[in-house]
Amino acid sequence: MRGPNDMNKALQPAHRPVGQLHLDDLCVGQRFTSGTYLMEAARIKEFAAEFDPQPFHLDETAAQMSLFKGLAASGWHTAAVAMRLLVTGGLPFANGIIGLGGELSWPRPTRPGDILRVESEIVEITPSRSKPHQGIVTVRSTMFNQNGEAVYLLTAKLLVFRRPIQSKANK
Amino acid sequence: MRGPNDMNKALQPAHRPVGQLHLDDLCVGQRFTSGTYLMEAARIKEFAAEFDPQPFHLDETAAQMSLFKGLAASGWHTAAVAMRLLVTGGLPFANGIIGLGGELSWPRPTRPGDILRVESEIVEITPSRSKPHQGIVTVRSTMFNQNGEAVYLLTAKLLVFRRPIQSKANK
Repeated sequence: MRGPNDMNKALQPAHRPVGQLHLDDLCVGQRFTSGTYLMEAARIKEFAAEFDPQPFHLDETAAQMSLFKGLAASGWHTAAVAMRLLVTGGLPFANGIIGLGGELSWPRPTRPGDILRVESEIVEITPSRSKPHQGIVTVRSTMFNQNGEAVYLLTAKLLVFRRPIQSKANK
Repeated sequence: MRGPNDMNKALQPAHRPVGQLHLDDLCVGQRFTSGTYLMEAARIKEFAAEFDPQPFHLDETAAQMSLFKGLAASGWHTAAVAMRLLVTGGLPFANGIIGLGGELSWPRPTRPGDILRVESEIVEITPSRSKPHQGIVTVRSTMFNQNGEAVYLLTAKLLVFRRPIQSKANK
């Protein structure tokens, strides 16, 4: 069984809701908040079996004996959930979220029952010199659990486009 | 249908094969090569529907019209596959692969039919000052496709332990 629960289903559209913001609309310091996502034990184990089959992500007893002292999600599962929260409203860019790269860290594990959300802030905007219709936007995102503890930090460089000229003319 | 194909199944053990290497066994410049993984269109779309529901990861026609000019896997799917290749033999550390954080980039997309592998190199080893049985090992991993093109770069800081004292006495 891999279906997300009702709480998560509410967040899962057939397609991404279309974001509104172009490069023209962004400024350094601008902040965004995502919806929430409930981490579930069954999905933690299933993701790990496919992508990160280590005992502390697969089995409660083994996890209890490990550094993590209890079942912990793969950091890549946590990162994927953060992306879902950004894409489904957490970062409403008109052309989507196209990442070139970034820096990440996992200051503490995510656990079954955790309710996660992501807060993001634009920290840098660099218009392209050679391609005037686009730019690189650096976004610092922090994922928090229900206790307000940071579980995942991502500073990502995203490709963002200016509003198309015809739309501008129509305004 | 989410089962990996036969090629990928061959790589998927019930549990991670136990790696052999402790901190004591590692040196800067040491290199490792993973097995291979075949990216499949169905799994690309399924991963994206759950974690990165953007048109260029979900639908061939929409992807053809996008920046990617064809279906492309979510970068987080690519990252998760890289972790699988590292855990299933690509980085045989005795205590598993415990990442604290790192830097990543996706120089080009991964596509259906791509056969991926990861090559890794130890670039730094920092023994802990306060905890003599552990250290931080920085590993630079590059994922290549079947054409030898780099599709994903990860430089990760990993927690690695020394060989337990009783094992040393038994040597």
